[in-house]
Amino acid sequence: MAETASAVRVGIIGANGYSGIELLRTLSLHPHVHITYVAGSRDADGGLLAEQPFLRTLTAPAHTHDGASLAALKVQQFDPDVCAAACDVAFVGLPSGSAGQVAAALYERGLRVIDLSGDLRLPAEAYRTWYGRDPVPDAVLGAAVYGLTEWRRASIATAQLLSNPGCYATATLLALLPAVRAGLNRPGAPIVVDAKSGVSGAGRKAVQSNLLGELAENFYPYKVGRHQHTPEIEQMLDPDGGVRISLTTQLLPVARGILSACHVMLERPVTVEEVYQFYQDCYAAEPFVHVLPPGQVPQLKHVRGSNHCDIAIAVDERTGLLQVFSVIDNLQKGAAGQAVQNFNVMHGFAETEGLWAQPMYP
Amino acid sequence: MAETASAVRVGIIGANGYSGIELLRTLSLHPHVHITYVAGSRDADGGLLAEQPFLRTLTAPAHTHDGASLAALKVQQFDPDVCAAACDVAFVGLPSGSAGQVAAALYERGLRVIDLSGDLRLPAEAYRTWYGRDPVPDAVLGAAVYGLTEWRRASIATAQLLSNPGCYATATLLALLPAVRAGLNRPGAPIVVDAKSGVSGAGRKAVQSNLLGELAENFYPYKVGRHQHTPEIEQMLDPDGGVRISLTTQLLPVARGILSACHVMLERPVTVEEVYQFYQDCYAAEPFVHVLPPGQVPQLKHVRGSNHCDIAIAVDERTGLLQVFSVIDNLQKGAAGQAVQNFNVMHGFAETEGLWAQPMYP
Amino acid sequence: MAETASAVRVGIIGANGYSGIELLRTLSLHPHVHITYVAGSRDADGGLLAEQPFLRTLTAPAHTHDGASLAALKVQQFDPDVCAAACDVAFVGLPSGSAGQVAAALYERGLRVIDLSGDLRLPAEAYRTWYGRDPVPDAVLGAAVYGLTEWRRASIATAQLLSNPGCYATATLLALLPAVRAGLNRPGAPIVVDAKSGVSGAGRKAVQSNLLGELAENFYPYKVGRHQHTPEIEQMLDPDGGVRISLTTQLLPVARGILSACHVMLERPVTVEEVYQFYQDCYAAEPFVHVLPPGQVPQLKHVRGSNHCDIAIAVDERTGLLQVFSVIDNLQKGAAGQAVQNFNVMHGFAETEGLWAQPMYP
Amino acid sequence: MAETASAVRVGIIGANGYSGIELLRTLSLHPHVHITYVAGSRDADGGLLAEQPFLRTLTAPAHTHDGASLAALKVQQFDPDVCAAACDVAFVGLPSGSAGQVAAALYERGLRVIDLSGDLRLPAEAYRTWYGRDPVPDAVLGAAVYGLTEWRRASIATAQLLSNPGCYATATLLALLPAVRAGLNRPGAPIVVDAKSGVSGAGRKAVQSNLLGELAENFYPYKVGRHQHTPEIEQMLDPDGGVRISLTTQLLPVARGILSACHVMLERPVTVEEVYQFYQDCYAAEPFVHVLPPGQVPQLKHVRGSNHCDIAIAVDERTGLLQVFSVIDNLQKGAAGQAVQNFNVMHGFAETEGLWAQPMYP
Repeated sequence: MAETASAVRVGIIGANGYSGIELLRTLSLHPHVHITYVAGSRDADGGLLAEQPFLRTLTAPAHTHDGASLAALKVQQFDPDVCAAACDVAFVGLPSGSAGQVAAALYERGLRVIDLSGDLRLPAEAYRTWYGRDPVPDAVLGAAVYGLTEWRRASIATAQLLSNPGCYATATLLALLPAVRAGLNRPGAPIVVDAKSGVSGAGRKAVQSNLLGELAENFYPYKVGRHQHTPEIEQMLDPDGGVRISLTTQLLPVARGILSACHVMLERPVTVEEVYQFYQDCYAAEPFVHVLPPGQVPQLKHVRGSNHCDIAIAVDERTGLLQVFSVIDNLQKGAAGQAVQNFNVMHGFAETEGLWAQPMYP
Repeated sequence: MAETASAVRVGIIGANGYSGIELLRTLSLHPHVHITYVAGSRDADGGLLAEQPFLRTLTAPAHTHDGASLAALKVQQFDPDVCAAACDVAFVGLPSGSAGQVAAALYERGLRVIDLSGDLRLPAEAYRTWYGRDPVPDAVLGAAVYGLTEWRRASIATAQLLSNPGCYATATLLALLPAVRAGLNRPGAPIVVDAKSGVSGAGRKAVQSNLLGELAENFYPYKVGRHQHTPEIEQMLDPDGGVRISLTTQLLPVARGILSACHVMLERPVTVEEVYQFYQDCYAAEPFVHVLPPGQVPQLKHVRGSNHCDIAIAVDERTGLLQVFSVIDNLQKGAAGQAVQNFNVMHGFAETEGLWAQPMYP
Repeated sequence: MAETASAVRVGIIGANGYSGIELLRTLSLHPHVHITYVAGSRDADGGLLAEQPFLRTLTAPAHTHDGASLAALKVQQFDPDVCAAACDVAFVGLPSGSAGQVAAALYERGLRVIDLSGDLRLPAEAYRTWYGRDPVPDAVLGAAVYGLTEWRRASIATAQLLSNPGCYATATLLALLPAVRAGLNRPGAPIVVDAKSGVSGAGRKAVQSNLLGELAENFYPYKVGRHQHTPEIEQMLDPDGGVRISLTTQLLPVARGILSACHVMLERPVTVEEVYQFYQDCYAAEPFVHVLPPGQVPQLKHVRGSNHCDIAIAVDERTGLLQVFSVIDNLQKGAAGQAVQNFNVMHGFAETEGLWAQPMYP
Repeated sequence: MAETASAVRVGIIGANGYSGIELLRTLSLHPHVHITYVAGSRDADGGLLAEQPFLRTLTAPAHTHDGASLAALKVQQFDPDVCAAACDVAFVGLPSGSAGQVAAALYERGLRVIDLSGDLRLPAEAYRTWYGRDPVPDAVLGAAVYGLTEWRRASIATAQLLSNPGCYATATLLALLPAVRAGLNRPGAPIVVDAKSGVSGAGRKAVQSNLLGELAENFYPYKVGRHQHTPEIEQMLDPDGGVRISLTTQLLPVARGILSACHVMLERPVTVEEVYQFYQDCYAAEPFVHVLPPGQVPQLKHVRGSNHCDIAIAVDERTGLLQVFSVIDNLQKGAAGQAVQNFNVMHGFAETEGLWAQPMYP
């Protein structure tokens, strides 16, 4: 797996967070990537591998094409000029609030930027409402392309500034877009999205409520009625604002994974076979989206550690509801994996490049 | 805590299953109970405590009033005549399908019977449809009182045959009954119930899909659109069949606990404060049902190991939905705990007798 | 369960930590206790129950003898004079380092004090070495009685200042003391103690390494060769310093529980039956310590949520090793439970008072 | 990643078990492998992917070189002649007891065989003692090469019949061999090996004691003093029988991972730096074995999902003990991963081929 001449010089900002770690894991095996810059917020006397012992194995001879150089990398304090000099593309894996400014600074310096935060996903006014702070300047916001890969390939291919979708948004949109585009949902009736996520979605910051002692054997809803992925989903379902969702987010006592259960009032009677066939047609050519035959259900662990999304359909004739269930790994298809998928689209690489990992089961 | 003169002689059928174990744990501390008969399906050469080492501690001197006699009990092959001779009351903790016949046999022998299965909860026709087999005879079925304690005390007090509610049904009904009785739900619109349960609800039988290797870090829906607690909930919400629910059941990678998220289309605009006050009024006198102030959310682990139920209310003005979240321990308020609560009502004991356990946190 | 005339007025310092919560859970059901003072380090505008929602259920009418008064309690900023005025006995559930001074202040004000920290367990010099800071004054240290209940009842009964044993120390000492006192261990050969604990032993402070995302599906040793419970165990095994242990502590991805595996070089050949009989004789009258028959093994979950300790014996003839395995719940027998047990001994109550809880299984 | 002309035709026997699944996951990405035969014990009307939904994604176009053909594979009832016709090499992932006969039948038909069971690891007499049944014929047993890769490369390269080491044995031997070969251990003193494993090591069979309800929040020892990996470790440490280990195996409530804690009485005083340097020299060229600097500890999750082994050293001067801790993923380096590593050695491929996966963290 020799490094190709066309290797892209890649920087990762936020290498100590869960998205950053996942980017390192994934990109270290990408045949067209040369990681040349890593920035993180923590003390960084040691090199990258001392900071992240679970990546230590990258130093193994012949283990990967740039193991040696990666081992030599230092986690730096972020500096936009240093980053711009070292990279062709930057992945920004910082929390919303600080990510947008970093992305803007790099965008303005001419880099192609893939931002994993929520800072570039909403129009200015909606951002203020749902995030409770000011957005980045309009010029930057206006340049951002929303990167739900399967539904936006043309725009992604030429984007300089890519806004990677939220984890809940990815799972929910992949589940709902076919139905809504086909007009299966009853106009005016809200779609109930009851979603559940592993705790890595909350980041790696030390917070009492995310201790294992608190979360083990636990489960509960949070941000009820006010999760910031709500408008992101609604605008993608219908830019004209014609679809309302009620998004309930809940915390699972697991590290990874999102299951989104979408309950849709049907506009007209349909059979599960019809809907299945329709979804199947919609996603048949997709390498990462899989529609399960009626009667099967998606499991969190069937996609864990991979960039895949499994979707299942049910129609409840008693109540006139269509139910669509989707599962993703929140750090892969919900963050780093989709970011790499978008990177591949942006560079004309095969979309599965670097993303071959099978789900880890058990 | 000396055994009172009025001690009731109690038998437990199905002592090797999770409900049976929980009944033993709970009843062994009940001041008015003398456990005189224990039956189970497994090999039973040894006594009760050899079978259930986690109950071994009952043999401790002075640990509980009847430790000595309990230690001497054998797990017997069930025999209705032996049971009837030994007990005043029998708790039947067997799987649906076999429980009904056992309950019927004991009922016919004049015992008061508390059945934890689904065999006595539905009218004959609905039972055939949802359980796929024939119910017990009409005379037995007709005698069964549905034991959702907080809403059925008068009938429970005089019941000879008590049908203990299902775990999902208990969590969901305690959450929905105030709203539905008050007419807050829009007529004709189905109520979406997205419920999640720990795996002890599936029993203790060796099943590959319930191995820790399969379930750890996993989560998924099951029995989509056909969970047998659906009609049990609907008939209690409205005996005339005017309310339809779509019940989705999902498996959490935890041993205990149910969270039921109920999404209700509102018939008219209401504020969360109004609904909260209404629920608060409804349950203010209840020792085991607690309505959380707006903004708080219920957590599985806040009720684990106890007979309590926490309920939270949210109103989403954007979508016109009322959301009610409830949590219970499926083996306590969802099974053995509520069974003991009903036992207390049936015998005129204080309703909290034997059920003082605080939730176990962390 | 009416409150008796002889109710002891009890204060709990550190009510927001795991030991403090467990003390509240346990003492709220104790028939001879009136909780009159609660102090904690966190913001405390609301009452006790708003701080600890999992204790909310104490407000239930008739649920417990002092539910009403407990609901009215505020979590206060600790003040030794206020505490001394309000209480007869204080339980100190603070981290080592701050606990000792609080215990000293209350001791000097004449209260009986039960300290759950490590601050009073070692002689001054050993404390300096293993804890890396100065101990409390000699007068205070000298007054402290080490409260391993089963082996120190006489001293405990009259103690004014009680030093509750460490969690690892409790599990290990109950496993080793019979063997060492009988001289089964080979003199000069170190005893290998390979112990494992749930994460609640590390407290409730927000620490990145204790996040569920880090610990789920994880396991590792920590403080290798320098855990501060080492000297506490050695001095109790042999005050003359004749026994050396190598204590290895490891972190289990569970909330509660300690298993201590003790590997002892035998001084002379013995059979497992001999050792079992000897242990059985040693602990036969104990309500909380249970010696399992040869061939059985202790399980963490067989004691979870209870004050019990299960011990199993094995003799490996191939290697001449005696193996003793013990399990406790680190928050019960390893902290709050043993503290209450000592409280009972100190006040002449039945030793099991308030500690009837069965292990929670599953 | 085009399939090379030199692709080896590979069969997998036992494709429904955890080792079989892991072999499929790993080999499906191996550039020199063509999976041509899959046998399993379960009902197999559907194809391979219907049986193992978490492998479904192999059907993705371009996802892997032989996705299409793999999707078309059926899980067959094992037949040695059909297998021999279809394959060059067979991996046998069956339980001990049945694996040996299958391996023998294929060996006799001229295939190169990699057996993951314990059936070929011990001399006949030791096998009878520790496994309690008769071994395969001497001719077969004599041909088997024990495949602890790092210590047996020369023999492995030419082996026709490869006996893959046990999971506990792999972790323990990698930890102990450098010390024992250097004579650091005191002659005559047993080495205490206190090992812990995730439950996937127990296989995928439905067994009550391995249900999540039983194991969650649990931990306990099993097969104390009689684990069958004991003689496998001893014979590799010293073929002359001069080293005795006491192996204690314990069950962690996680799916994957083994940590082996080895406690060695030192023959002479050494410093941790000396031992570290010695281990470092021993494993410096190894792609999969990593010796951590003194003061660091290995974590289960730092190797999960990868073929790596992390080793840490401690010297306890107080007790004269050397402690060596090692972690592996029991399904990778402890089973399927090492099997593929051996496959690579047997075929002259780069040893890391197909084994590039980074550990999955978090």
